[in-house]
Amino acid sequence: LPFESDRLRVVLVNARNPLNIGAAARAMSNFGFRNLRVVNPFQVAFQEARSAVGASGVLARAEQCTTVAEAVADCALVVGTTAVRHRDLLHRLKPLEEGGSLIRERLQTGGLQRDNVAVLFGSEKYGLSNEDLSHCHWLLHIRTEDEHISMNLGQAVAVCLYELMRSAGEGAQLQPKIKDVNPAPAEEVERITQMLFEALRLSGYVKPRTEGSTEEKVRRLIRRLSLRSPDAVAWQGMLHRIVLKLRRDAKK
Amino acid sequence: LPFESDRLRVVLVNARNPLNIGAAARAMSNFGFRNLRVVNPFQVAFQEARSAVGASGVLARAEQCTTVAEAVADCALVVGTTAVRHRDLLHRLKPLEEGGSLIRERLQTGGLQRDNVAVLFGSEKYGLSNEDLSHCHWLLHIRTEDEHISMNLGQAVAVCLYELMRSAGEGAQLQPKIKDVNPAPAEEVERITQMLFEALRLSGYVKPRTEGSTEEKVRRLIRRLSLRSPDAVAWQGMLHRIVLKLRRDAKK
Repeated sequence: LPFESDRLRVVLVNARNPLNIGAAARAMSNFGFRNLRVVNPFQVAFQEARSAVGASGVLARAEQCTTVAEAVADCALVVGTTAVRHRDLLHRLKPLEEGGSLIRERLQTGGLQRDNVAVLFGSEKYGLSNEDLSHCHWLLHIRTEDEHISMNLGQAVAVCLYELMRSAGEGAQLQPKIKDVNPAPAEEVERITQMLFEALRLSGYVKPRTEGSTEEKVRRLIRRLSLRSPDAVAWQGMLHRIVLKLRRDAKK
Repeated sequence: LPFESDRLRVVLVNARNPLNIGAAARAMSNFGFRNLRVVNPFQVAFQEARSAVGASGVLARAEQCTTVAEAVADCALVVGTTAVRHRDLLHRLKPLEEGGSLIRERLQTGGLQRDNVAVLFGSEKYGLSNEDLSHCHWLLHIRTEDEHISMNLGQAVAVCLYELMRSAGEGAQLQPKIKDVNPAPAEEVERITQMLFEALRLSGYVKPRTEGSTEEKVRRLIRRLSLRSPDAVAWQGMLHRIVLKLRRDAKK
C-alpha cells in the first residue's frame, strides 16, 4: 500500500554531535522522510550541522522544540528506541522488524488508522531518559550483539528508516486492525496525564520527594491505555470535574 | 538456519575518512561480524580510526591489503555495493532484500554452498571503480530516493549488515509477546469502576437523573482500557487516594 512518509516525525532528543545530527538528516533524505524535530539540541552542534557542506533540505526545515511533549504533540503513536535489552520492562519492547510494520500500518494511505507517528532517538551517550520514555507507547529495539548493543546514532536512524521503507511494497497484505482506530493525539493524552497528576497531588498521593518519578509513572500508565480519541474526551471531562472539586475543597 | 558470520569479509576500498572507517567497524561489532579488510586506505585515516577512543576489536584485527584481488582471495562470492542505479549494467543489480538472502545462504552452517563471502564498499566520494567492480559477481543496491541516492559509508555498511542479520533469526521466536499477558481479573476492573464512579459522584459529575447511564458509560470506558493486572493495582491505589480525599472534604 502507498505510504505517507510525511506523517513520520524523526525526533532527536538532546543530540550532542553535529555529525550525528547531519547523518540522521542524510539518512532521512536517502529514504524519503522529511520531518525532523530536534528537542533541546546543543545549539552549537545544531548550527554546525545545519551549516555543514552538503547539509540536506531536511536540516533546513527541521523544527526545534524545547520538550518531548511539544515534539510529539501532533502524533497519535509515539515510539522510543532503545539499545538496552534487560531494563525493567515498563514498556513493551518490539524488535524492529515487528515494530516497523506496525509503524508502517499507521502511515499507510487510506489505512484505517492513519496517524502521525513520532520515533524518538536519545542522546549519543545516555539514550532516552525515563522522562522521555514516559511519552512513548512502546519501544523499538534493533537486535544487536550482547557485547556491543549500543549503536551509533546516525546508523541507528538509518537502519530504522531502512526497515520502514524496506517492505513498503511488501506490507500490502497487512490487515489494519480495527481495534485501535482513531487513537487520541499525544497532546490530548498529555492533558489527561496532567489532570490526573494534579488530582493525585491535591489528594496527597504525590509525595514531594518522589514527585518526578510519580509523574513518569502516571504518564506511562496512561500511555499504556492506548486511548482512542472519543474516550480521551470522556476522560478529560471526568478528570476535569474531579480536579475542580479538589481545588475548591483545598481552598476551604 | 545457523549462520557463520565469520565467513563474511567486509571490504572497504580506498576509504578516506577515519570516522567512516570507525563507524563501519562499529556496525560490524553491533551485528556480530568480525572480519574487516581495508584496501589501500589513507594510512593517516586508518591509523586515526584505529587509535580512536572506543575503537572496536574489529579495527584492531582488521587486515590491510594493497589490492582488491588480495582482499577477496579466499572468498567464493564477491559482492559490490553501489548507489548508482542506471550505470551501464555490466553487473546484475540486486536490491538488498534479495541480495542479502543470497549472501545468507552462503553463510549458513551446513548449507550446500558454504563459502566465504566478501562485500565491497567503495570510497565516500567515488564509490567502487570499474576495476574494483570487475572482481564482483553481482552488485547489491540499497533502494533510496532518486534525488538522494548516495548514502554515507558508515550508514550503508550498517544497513547492509542489519539486513544480513535481520532474518537470520526470523524462524526462532525472539520475544515472547508481552502484549496480552496477564489481563486484570474482572473483579479488579469492577473495583476500579466503582472507585471512579464514587469519585465522580463526590465531585458532582454524576447527575441523579442520569446516574444509571453514567455508571454504564464509566464501566464501558474502563473495560475498553483492557487493563493488565499490575496496572490495575496501580489504578486502584491512585483512585483510592482520590476517593478518600473527596470523602474527607465532603465531611468538612
